[in-house]
Amino acid sequence: MPEPDVYERVMELAKRRGFIWPSAEIYGGVAGLVDYGPLGARMKRRIEEIWRSFYVLREGFHEIECPTVGVEPVYVASGHVKGFSDKMVQCPRCEEYLRADHVAAAHGVPNPAALSAEALSGALKELPCTACGEELGQVKVFDFNLMFNTWIGPGSQRKGYLRPETAQGIFTDFPRLLRFYRDKLPFGTVQVGKSFRNEISPRQGMIRLREFTQAEAEIFVHPEGKRHPGFARYAEYQVPLLGCCAQDEGKEEPVRVAMKDAVEGGLVANEYVGYYIALTHEILVSIGVDPARLRFRQHLTTERAHYAADCWDAEILSGRFGWVELVGIADRTDYDLKAHSAVSGVALTAYIPLEVPRMEKRKRIIPDMKALGPKFRGRAKEVADALVKADPGPGGVEIDVAGEKISIPASLYQVREEEVEVRGEEVMPHVIEPSYGIDRMCYAVLEHSYGEDMVEGEVRRVLRLPAAVAPVQAGVFPLVSRDGLDRVAAEIASTLTAGGIFTEFDESGAIGRRYRRQDEIGTPYAVTVDYQTLDDGTVTIRERDSMAQARVKKDALVATLRGLICGDIAFSSLGP
Amino acid sequence: MPEPDVYERVMELAKRRGFIWPSAEIYGGVAGLVDYGPLGARMKRRIEEIWRSFYVLREGFHEIECPTVGVEPVYVASGHVKGFSDKMVQCPRCEEYLRADHVAAAHGVPNPAALSAEALSGALKELPCTACGEELGQVKVFDFNLMFNTWIGPGSQRKGYLRPETAQGIFTDFPRLLRFYRDKLPFGTVQVGKSFRNEISPRQGMIRLREFTQAEAEIFVHPEGKRHPGFARYAEYQVPLLGCCAQDEGKEEPVRVAMKDAVEGGLVANEYVGYYIALTHEILVSIGVDPARLRFRQHLTTERAHYAADCWDAEILSGRFGWVELVGIADRTDYDLKAHSAVSGVALTAYIPLEVPRMEKRKRIIPDMKALGPKFRGRAKEVADALVKADPGPGGVEIDVAGEKISIPASLYQVREEEVEVRGEEVMPHVIEPSYGIDRMCYAVLEHSYGEDMVEGEVRRVLRLPAAVAPVQAGVFPLVSRDGLDRVAAEIASTLTAGGIFTEFDESGAIGRRYRRQDEIGTPYAVTVDYQTLDDGTVTIRERDSMAQARVKKDALVATLRGLICGDIAFSSLGP
Repeated sequence: MPEPDVYERVMELAKRRGFIWPSAEIYGGVAGLVDYGPLGARMKRRIEEIWRSFYVLREGFHEIECPTVGVEPVYVASGHVKGFSDKMVQCPRCEEYLRADHVAAAHGVPNPAALSAEALSGALKELPCTACGEELGQVKVFDFNLMFNTWIGPGSQRKGYLRPETAQGIFTDFPRLLRFYRDKLPFGTVQVGKSFRNEISPRQGMIRLREFTQAEAEIFVHPEGKRHPGFARYAEYQVPLLGCCAQDEGKEEPVRVAMKDAVEGGLVANEYVGYYIALTHEILVSIGVDPARLRFRQHLTTERAHYAADCWDAEILSGRFGWVELVGIADRTDYDLKAHSAVSGVALTAYIPLEVPRMEKRKRIIPDMKALGPKFRGRAKEVADALVKADPGPGGVEIDVAGEKISIPASLYQVREEEVEVRGEEVMPHVIEPSYGIDRMCYAVLEHSYGEDMVEGEVRRVLRLPAAVAPVQAGVFPLVSRDGLDRVAAEIASTLTAGGIFTEFDESGAIGRRYRRQDEIGTPYAVTVDYQTLDDGTVTIRERDSMAQARVKKDALVATLRGLICGDIAFSSLGP
Repeated sequence: MPEPDVYERVMELAKRRGFIWPSAEIYGGVAGLVDYGPLGARMKRRIEEIWRSFYVLREGFHEIECPTVGVEPVYVASGHVKGFSDKMVQCPRCEEYLRADHVAAAHGVPNPAALSAEALSGALKELPCTACGEELGQVKVFDFNLMFNTWIGPGSQRKGYLRPETAQGIFTDFPRLLRFYRDKLPFGTVQVGKSFRNEISPRQGMIRLREFTQAEAEIFVHPEGKRHPGFARYAEYQVPLLGCCAQDEGKEEPVRVAMKDAVEGGLVANEYVGYYIALTHEILVSIGVDPARLRFRQHLTTERAHYAADCWDAEILSGRFGWVELVGIADRTDYDLKAHSAVSGVALTAYIPLEVPRMEKRKRIIPDMKALGPKFRGRAKEVADALVKADPGPGGVEIDVAGEKISIPASLYQVREEEVEVRGEEVMPHVIEPSYGIDRMCYAVLEHSYGEDMVEGEVRRVLRLPAAVAPVQAGVFPLVSRDGLDRVAAEIASTLTAGGIFTEFDESGAIGRRYRRQDEIGTPYAVTVDYQTLDDGTVTIRERDSMAQARVKKDALVATLRGLICGDIAFSSLGP
């Protein structure tokens, strides 16, 4: 039997210790659905809070919360009803559904994702089914829409979809949001919540979930205002970038570039995209992604959506799956607002005052009331009102009066040319979108923090999680469960918990075994109460990563641990 | 036109100021779905955090997170596939779908929810449709299942449902949770997340949503251990209770009872149910529900689920809807675990060691190998192994060997009676479930905190939100936007934000207007920078509820506001 790979080792630990469990396991589980157990759910929530500390607290973007069930027109406008699909094939022998491009790729067909359904059908003809091994033969490749669908209300009243991304809720709220932000650009809005993709045959665990958590920011900017006001923060920040040209030249290694140079040199389209690439790098490293296994890859022109001005993926290197996308950062231009405006008929623009008003020549119609009166009688006023708003044509003009189209000859009005002052204009904002996959981030952090060392002849499994994401921050142990040591330790555990430190009290088993238990779940510090504690009021703190120990006064423990956790105190400064 | 009622007033404010918006409004909205705007989403999150501060931090219950999409067997076991439905009728004229019991109730039919489909069909015959007004005539009432359904995977592979409650994810994780809690009872697990009910024709805004957020706790207790270890905390706590007997006697007014007396007197079934009733009262009042419009109503025996040992609803009085349920607290006994155990075939029990091991007489079979050998040859050992485990009958025993049933006459074995020590037993825990509707709680807080007073001849709309749930905790205004006042105010706003206080800077419009804006969104304190600030470094703080003002040093502002917000400082102590 082959050695389990890192994915298997991480998932075995995650399952056994309460991070991630198969969903509905007593019913055999469901591909593409997982439960977060107590430790996983807490780690996930802490990662979401770190994300919010950047986007909500620091950037000042407000968070909104929209339903996951949505009505059809939203996803017609967004393009998901038509275009959000994978090419699928069903094996005629075993009846398994397969992703056609995956089958082709597994047998060396070059760039199968770019092939049409017909071309793929041809390519698969002589290939074996990846499930049963039989030749696929004459199969038909077809599109399978990845949105979960349902009906809202009884009697199939309204078709509904589970949202494939949180973004659309922000777009459809644009008029309300614009008013909330007092009609000013730029502004950002974020949403953190569940999204859904009905994957054909997901076999990649945490990497390809059918239900997952996204954290998305939509930043609405003036189309001519893509210089980020806070860009200086990241001007010198270096990020490993792999541009599309480099990829075209066959390169796979990213180059570390200061963001200022990346934008000025044209590698990154504008300061907004650059700013959020750098911010994303900062977030990912702070939650525990290994910077040496992190890169930002630009979409190739063939893979980039036609409307996007630029698009980068933050990718991490994983042992089993290779480079995996965690975050996408795109300049989506006005694609989304334009699409929703067209389908809903609602203008999704912002009225932006001009810094300097400009004069413009305009033609204005002056109705000849003497001529209109006899001709239209009681409706003359309505006709005149409509005329004033109309644009004069060469020989006359067509107007709409209460739904009726009426042609008015030029003889019934005069045209006057006027100079008017234009103080502002309606602008359709562009959207910069950083979009984070929280579940993949959780998995990446678990894999990158996972380690095995040999300690005293035994394998020590350890998660080297940053203290900011560890589900437990301090383990508290009595050396033995008697002589009052257990009582003192329990008191310390309560004090730490009250002090806002996630604490676990453990009194069962040998002390070495208790250290290992905490190592496995990534607890950065372990506090032990021993007989010396009863004499001089000191306890030991053990650091997970160095396994070094230091004695500190138990009364100073909350302050010491807080300092260690936030990085203000170095463990080595505590002395032996 | 009638005066708008309190629901309309609250929702107008909530919509205009960014608390709650119709979902997909640019497409005409969808009944039963709402978006939380920036202020509403923040308020909702703060209410969820307060809930967690009770259940996760104080009670020590771990939180898990399960998907909202679930497979069919889960909801077959839970009873939702069969029983989670409303009686529906379609008007033959206007084709509108109606809730049959609502139509009947609107026309005075007594207790329509208890009628069968046939009886309801009869009762509706001569009643008018509530939508078009035409007589319904010969209509057929039928059951409409309220679960949203979908398909998981392509080709209708697996039927899926959107969960109607978060609880089932906790029940199906029971074996994993039990291990996580090291096989000890009692333990609690909570989940906060979206649930779904495909309501037939929801017209009650925030009160009847098709997608809503629940916060549920499932507390697994020993069936004989319903004394709560922390009951002393609430023994003297008084709660307004309306028991089922009082209701049977036609009473509507609750009676304030100390929880100890309620449990001892048998009004509340046990200490666990009592503890969580009291805890729920404490949570609801702390988030801003008016205690004078809050009661706990016991389910009538006719309305209570057959398996429940007791069930209470926390209800609030609302202007439009009367008494509305926010929270349900039930002793569900072993109903859920038993049901999932039966359908999944997995034992959902805990092995509980006995405090005092007991001796039990057991009959044990001793196979007669000399007789078995010749009869069963190579299978003799298998037969003997099966025999040892079997329970001896009077004349013989039937055993199962590799799927084959074999009858063994008593002549082939001996029966020995032994005394064995029983050290523990398998126990199926009972479940105590407090289940909270977060959206209704948000609405209740808005309605109960909403007020209109006359101030200087104008109506002042104000949300008297507790500081702990207000989406903005401090407004900061420069008296005028010049002479450096704006700069100083902006600095103060940054300092407060950095100090963890949700702050809004506002410099536009008259100062009175800015106070009103903050009053409307429930901001408890407003800080104004005026010319005196430049002289002596003091600012004014205005308290929302009293509209009183006090001057304080601006350097002490973070500490002062924190003290005011958490209630450590009384505003009146600040002096003029």
